[in-house]
Amino acid sequence: MAIILGIDPGSRKMGYGVINQVGSRQEYIASGCIRLEKLSSFPERLDAIFVYVSEVIERYLPQELAIEEVFMGVNAQSALKLGQARGCAIVAATQASMPVYEYAARKIKQAIVGNGNADKTQMGLMVKHLLKLPGLPQEDAADALAIAMCHGHSRQQLLQTNGARFGRNGRMSLNK
Amino acid sequence: MAIILGIDPGSRKMGYGVINQVGSRQEYIASGCIRLEKLSSFPERLDAIFVYVSEVIERYLPQELAIEEVFMGVNAQSALKLGQARGCAIVAATQASMPVYEYAARKIKQAIVGNGNADKTQMGLMVKHLLKLPGLPQEDAADALAIAMCHGHSRQQLLQTNGARFGRNGRMSLNK
Repeated sequence: MAIILGIDPGSRKMGYGVINQVGSRQEYIASGCIRLEKLSSFPERLDAIFVYVSEVIERYLPQELAIEEVFMGVNAQSALKLGQARGCAIVAATQASMPVYEYAARKIKQAIVGNGNADKTQMGLMVKHLLKLPGLPQEDAADALAIAMCHGHSRQQLLQTNGARFGRNGRMSLNK
Repeated sequence: MAIILGIDPGSRKMGYGVINQVGSRQEYIASGCIRLEKLSSFPERLDAIFVYVSEVIERYLPQELAIEEVFMGVNAQSALKLGQARGCAIVAATQASMPVYEYAARKIKQAIVGNGNADKTQMGLMVKHLLKLPGLPQEDAADALAIAMCHGHSRQQLLQTNGARFGRNGRMSLNK
């Protein structure tokens, strides 16, 4: 059993999703989206990300963070902003001694929809279906849940095929 | 009187410099460089930046953070890495309730050397001279001290020319 926090990083909004991986089953715990547009200064936004992610960690006690790799097609200005936001989310997790796993968007789509080119709607529908949610989750929350679910799958596969195990610190190690 | 922390952000090394601005006089307090190359994973580096900057803040109790604006000529990959590192340094300051001020490299050089195109050697020599240091500071530490000094100047000018004042929270406000 592992509680996994997924983060969809962004400098204007940031989605989070928490799931429980029990064997090969995935259970929904929580999800949401922090909106940062209203905070006027960039340092305030970064602070809000750190505080908010820390609060989510404190509330749901996830053991691992899964976060999307940043798409490299963005320009330097966007990459810088996104990097700052992403760094603050990651450090909130490392400060809680959580290991961090990164997944490319394509890999996440492949894991959830079975198609690396799936669009937002397909992703939302599959997240709703797989986690048996009563309605479609908000878009950023759905992405964050998908990231957590993708890590849950990878984690499970490693456990089964390679005999990996997870120490008490949540870090994965391979037997042999 | 204001104790100012300057940070020269980087994902492989990060310089810091602490000065005391007493009227128009600037006194050296401390400086150094954190080397991150030895930490193998990027989350570990980000965590080290947050912890180290937090420690510097705890030790010297600076009231304000001055940080260099990132040069936009870098590519997206570098901007992302730099952004993550920079975000973690900024959030260490905002978590200590410090206001954050950003300065372009050109403006910093102008303030210290009187020439926006000054090179590293000129900057190091002027920092040494102005702060009456016994020797040349390490390069990243010198840059960080220069950023703190640049903010000290700007702060002082605002106080003198615009009648700005600084509240107990360290935030600058203009009279009328």
